[in-house]
Amino acid sequence: LASAIKAGEVRKTTNIVCTISNDMGEEPTYVGIPISEIMKDYTMGDVISLLWFKTLFPKWATKFIELVLVTAADHGPCVSGAHNTIVAARAGKDLISSLCSGLLTIGPRFGGAVDAAAINFKRACDSQIPPDEFVESLKKKGQRVEGIGHRIKTAENRDKRVELLANYAKQHFPEMGTFLYAKKVEEYTLQKANNLVLNIDGAIGSLFADMLKGVGKYSDSEVMEVLELGGLNGLFTLSRSIGFIGHALDQKRMKQPLYRHPWDDVLYAEPERPSRLANGEDEE
Amino acid sequence: LASAIKAGEVRKTTNIVCTISNDMGEEPTYVGIPISEIMKDYTMGDVISLLWFKTLFPKWATKFIELVLVTAADHGPCVSGAHNTIVAARAGKDLISSLCSGLLTIGPRFGGAVDAAAINFKRACDSQIPPDEFVESLKKKGQRVEGIGHRIKTAENRDKRVELLANYAKQHFPEMGTFLYAKKVEEYTLQKANNLVLNIDGAIGSLFADMLKGVGKYSDSEVMEVLELGGLNGLFTLSRSIGFIGHALDQKRMKQPLYRHPWDDVLYAEPERPSRLANGEDEE
Amino acid sequence: LASAIKAGEVRKTTNIVCTISNDMGEEPTYVGIPISEIMKDYTMGDVISLLWFKTLFPKWATKFIELVLVTAADHGPCVSGAHNTIVAARAGKDLISSLCSGLLTIGPRFGGAVDAAAINFKRACDSQIPPDEFVESLKKKGQRVEGIGHRIKTAENRDKRVELLANYAKQHFPEMGTFLYAKKVEEYTLQKANNLVLNIDGAIGSLFADMLKGVGKYSDSEVMEVLELGGLNGLFTLSRSIGFIGHALDQKRMKQPLYRHPWDDVLYAEPERPSRLANGEDEE
Amino acid sequence: LASAIKAGEVRKTTNIVCTISNDMGEEPTYVGIPISEIMKDYTMGDVISLLWFKTLFPKWATKFIELVLVTAADHGPCVSGAHNTIVAARAGKDLISSLCSGLLTIGPRFGGAVDAAAINFKRACDSQIPPDEFVESLKKKGQRVEGIGHRIKTAENRDKRVELLANYAKQHFPEMGTFLYAKKVEEYTLQKANNLVLNIDGAIGSLFADMLKGVGKYSDSEVMEVLELGGLNGLFTLSRSIGFIGHALDQKRMKQPLYRHPWDDVLYAEPERPSRLANGEDEE
Ligand SMILES: CC(C)(COP(=O)(O)OP(=O)(O)OC[C@H]1O[C@@H](n2cnc3c(N)ncnc32)[C@H](O)[C@@H]1OP(=O)(O)O)[C@@H](O)C(=O)NCCC(=O)NCCS
Ligand SMILES: CC(C)(COP(=O)(O)OP(=O)(O)OC[C@H]1O[C@@H](n2cnc3c(N)ncnc32)[C@H](O)[C@@H]1OP(=O)(O)O)[C@@H](O)C(=O)NCCC(=O)NCCS
Ligand SMILES: CC(C)(COP(=O)(O)OP(=O)(O)OC[C@H]1O[C@@H](n2cnc3c(N)ncnc32)[C@H](O)[C@@H]1OP(=O)(O)O)[C@@H](O)C(=O)NCCC(=O)NCCS
Ligand SMILES: CC(C)(COP(=O)(O)OP(=O)(O)OC[C@H]1O[C@@H](n2cnc3c(N)ncnc32)[C@H](O)[C@@H]1OP(=O)(O)O)[C@@H](O)C(=O)NCCC(=O)NCCS
Repeated sequence: LASAIKAGEVRKTTNIVCTISNDMGEEPTYVGIPISEIMKDYTMGDVISLLWFKTLFPKWATKFIELVLVTAADHGPCVSGAHNTIVAARAGKDLISSLCSGLLTIGPRFGGAVDAAAINFKRACDSQIPPDEFVESLKKKGQRVEGIGHRIKTAENRDKRVELLANYAKQHFPEMGTFLYAKKVEEYTLQKANNLVLNIDGAIGSLFADMLKGVGKYSDSEVMEVLELGGLNGLFTLSRSIGFIGHALDQKRMKQPLYRHPWDDVLYAEPERPSRLANGEDEE
Repeated sequence: LASAIKAGEVRKTTNIVCTISNDMGEEPTYVGIPISEIMKDYTMGDVISLLWFKTLFPKWATKFIELVLVTAADHGPCVSGAHNTIVAARAGKDLISSLCSGLLTIGPRFGGAVDAAAINFKRACDSQIPPDEFVESLKKKGQRVEGIGHRIKTAENRDKRVELLANYAKQHFPEMGTFLYAKKVEEYTLQKANNLVLNIDGAIGSLFADMLKGVGKYSDSEVMEVLELGGLNGLFTLSRSIGFIGHALDQKRMKQPLYRHPWDDVLYAEPERPSRLANGEDEE
Repeated sequence: LASAIKAGEVRKTTNIVCTISNDMGEEPTYVGIPISEIMKDYTMGDVISLLWFKTLFPKWATKFIELVLVTAADHGPCVSGAHNTIVAARAGKDLISSLCSGLLTIGPRFGGAVDAAAINFKRACDSQIPPDEFVESLKKKGQRVEGIGHRIKTAENRDKRVELLANYAKQHFPEMGTFLYAKKVEEYTLQKANNLVLNIDGAIGSLFADMLKGVGKYSDSEVMEVLELGGLNGLFTLSRSIGFIGHALDQKRMKQPLYRHPWDDVLYAEPERPSRLANGEDEE
Repeated sequence: LASAIKAGEVRKTTNIVCTISNDMGEEPTYVGIPISEIMKDYTMGDVISLLWFKTLFPKWATKFIELVLVTAADHGPCVSGAHNTIVAARAGKDLISSLCSGLLTIGPRFGGAVDAAAINFKRACDSQIPPDEFVESLKKKGQRVEGIGHRIKTAENRDKRVELLANYAKQHFPEMGTFLYAKKVEEYTLQKANNLVLNIDGAIGSLFADMLKGVGKYSDSEVMEVLELGGLNGLFTLSRSIGFIGHALDQKRMKQPLYRHPWDDVLYAEPERPSRLANGEDEE
């Protein structure tokens, strides 16, 4: 960058810096590669690697990215984001507005378990905190282990998606430290209850951390930086956008009318009608 | 749907209908296919086919969808959407807010040429309007042909991306009526000026219309319905989200400070300071 | 503007033009008035008049704007916008994200009746279409009259809000043509059913059109331009933002958990699991 | 609430709780007051007091809220939020999308100084930290004092807006502890540089904290809770929405074309074209 900025100093000082793409030539480039070349040999996962991480991950890694995109694309109409997309689409709003109304619910509680699982498992694993200690210290703070627990799935009735991701990683990843740590956490929580399995969010999160480490470019602390910057959050968001767009098209296709939440599902708990507070001099 | 609703009538009347996915079983399904099965054999293009179009397009079609996703992912930092994403990211906003600030610029003028090209070329082609008449009738209305014209590219210096898309279609598509019509339009506009070539937006738009027709499920008017519903708009939006997320991560990585548009780039043209209008009785 | 642009030509060509405010001096100005002066004598309605309409409406008009702001501020938690705000807030999202998730539902079906009433009543009134003809021509197109009809209110049990707005206008407005036209429409629809009264949306819309006309600055067609530009839409949006922010704060105060729409309120009507379409040559 | 929930238990369990408004009766209510009553005697500030704080602040307080709304409504076209609104409006997007594109930039760096000033000054004041210590401890952490410093204004050339707010408070507020603390901080920073005055953000923030305390309903820690919940952030957002809507209308009125950021204002610093990372077994 330093030399690039030096080069830049020759020209007028610029207000904006961009290091991922360039649209000045005959054809835009992604990290120096013209799009026409991208079209020949590169996949969606490769493009994400280029534009988000400014490097070209090994094929096993960009395929894993595509596997996650396919896995997290939709989780039905009831989750916050799909629901708000549906409500906006039924209010007659355009596709983008409906999509954004849904996307704006993604955060700590919806979608956030993936991110939290990646960060928490990775940090605990790197610091070599014993799994039982990890679980109990969260419990003491009144927190659940993000990425652990499922409504239906149990030790006996495994979630196939988790197994498929794990199998892919076993065949292709150079290392699986975070995931294996998460499995040890599961071993411990399963002693508490049968449904406290490593769930799909926990699997995606821990394996994404392992993928980043495995490409051989980042130290452990750099992997944490990428996660904190939002690399995995972006992946979840991009993937789930497929589902949200699907739900918006679905409602529009069916010409569904305006949604109004049913009155009898609301507890109206207004306080007593207030009289005006009288503190302070009030000339009125 | 009728029989499904009938089935539904047995249960309590529901406020929401969803026809693309189901999250009630052990594992969510996309149009009846459990995600774990999706993970084994289906690609991103297949998932889009399922969740947006409720069917499984032929492989040549879902691969074309992936080709478009890769082609339209980014167009540099200067276009409206990337720019607003960058400004929001530099205001310290989270990834989702930055992304949405950018997405909300996608519409008639930014990204809209793809949609407009698909609809206009397809409609003119289906109605067998001669290309010269098509161009001239738009000209009379003072409108440009969407999908025609390039800053640099000319008849002699072709845009490779357009050629690659066309070659893919020639090898795989059962029909290319809309694209060939667009090429005839180009033939005519090239007589006007050397740079009035079929551009990348026009190529994506017309070929997407041909793809929809080619899968053998839709009549011409149903293809138009899919386009008007937003099928192609969704694809552009999803694809460009990759770029926007990339730009947000890029700015955050560089810890860029708050952007403030330079004063000397604004023409301040405030009118004279107004005095209060006096129409109507005013007791004050 | 012309002369201002001329003045601008002396300086470097600018990419942005702004005609409502100026931040170059010691203190920003709204249409030439320094904020410190605004603070002494101007109200919210005055500021809206300045920044949106670049003029200073008479006091009776800016007070009417404030009356509308107070009247439309909230309509309970069940409407689309409040609902999406609540869902986003319960997903743990910040105030701005929650607000925007709600705002993005405002449009043709939610909030749009105010705009549509203003435009339709004004256009019909200016074109001197007889009220019965106006109603019947909409009926023929299968459309309802926007701004007419109420769940509970009837000719005998009037909506007090409508009466208060009408009384304010009777006392202060120089003219009430659009409102009186709307009342004649109501006279006709009341013959059809007792609850087809002019509702609060219809009253706000028609009176806002009369207010714009009454300030004495706009011709009838200029009033229509202001409405089509979004002047009234902006007022509804600003007003309802008060309610949305209130709902977001309300949910956060109560620390409400993640909302998930109940499964049993959804009709899952997925089609049969599709097999892959086979049209077109497919080498796979 | 407890008794209300008890009352609620008689009915079916509800998924949503709302404590600020009710739309079940003939007319919606804000905290128990029917809108038609609100229209007679209540102002915008009163409605904000009701819907956000569930109480009726004294008149001096709701007038102060209105003073802030008028003061912060716009700060010209160059700040992040106005800029993104302008860019979206010029992309041909509707008013709501343009507004939201701008709102989504409000946060820690844009608009956040108001919030941060309120919280930091209040906390330091309540903990009786000496002003010099307060400044120096922030300096040690490499942070600026939020709410201190102005481009042009100095000890000799005071910002009139700050003085007007202070005068209003002197006349009406029962207490001004936080503001006076902020002034002592200013006294200290002015010794460092002449322009390190208490700025408009700092004045609004500290006085809003004093207003909340002064209404006589909240303890110091409850005032902090209200601030942390977003009460003041909401006020800034609502106020600035007036300006953003104004900018969107302004661009639409002028029919400004699509904005594209100028190429020569961007430093393109793409890294070298990457070759594919080779870590891990890769069968391709
Ligand atoms: C999925 C989930 C809701 C299932 O919950 P559930 O079976 O209804 O469990 P309950 O809430 O009744 O809790 C039962 C016990 O398990 C404990 N428990 C549940 N999830 C836990 C977790 N993630 N970590 C630690 N303990 C957990 C509870 O504390 C409770 O313990 P207690 O009986 O000592 O009080 C829950 O595990 C969870 O919230 N997980 C974390 C979020 C997550 O990853 N979600 C993604 C799911 S795809
Ligand atoms: C790309 C574009 C901006 C290039 O414009 P340009 O070379 O600067 O052309 P100019 O605007 O100077 O116009 C030159 C002449 O070509 C004509 N022209 C330009 N684009 C045209 C179009 N798409 N259709 C018809 N005529 C067009 C102009 O009307 C003008 O004719 P005139 O001299 O008789 O008035 C322009 O072609 C365009 O707007 N295209 C449509 C939008 C689009 O598809 N954009 C995506 C690009 S990837
Ligand atoms: C408010 C409203 C939902 C009340 O509807 P309702 O009493 O349930 O009326 P129904 O839908 O059962 O219709 C009863 C009859 O009145 C007619 N009707 C209802 N609203 C009408 C309107 N706005 N214009 C013309 N006819 C109307 C219906 O067409 C129907 O006629 P029919 O029996 O000949 O088919 C309805 O009037 C409406 O949608 N109004 C317009 C939207 C609006 O302004 N909303 C804001 C309300 S604050
Ligand atoms: C408004 C502002 C940009 C003016 O800055 P400026 O005059 O250009 O000042 P500089 O950035 O050149 O700094 C000059 C010195 O003052 C110090 N300084 C500037 N603002 C300071 C603050 N808010 N608190 C403490 N010290 C400050 C700088 O650290 C610097 O000290 P140094 O010379 O020892 O390094 C700046 O004061 C600021 O960022 N304030 C806080 C944010 C805020 O409230 N903004 C709203 C303005 S309406």
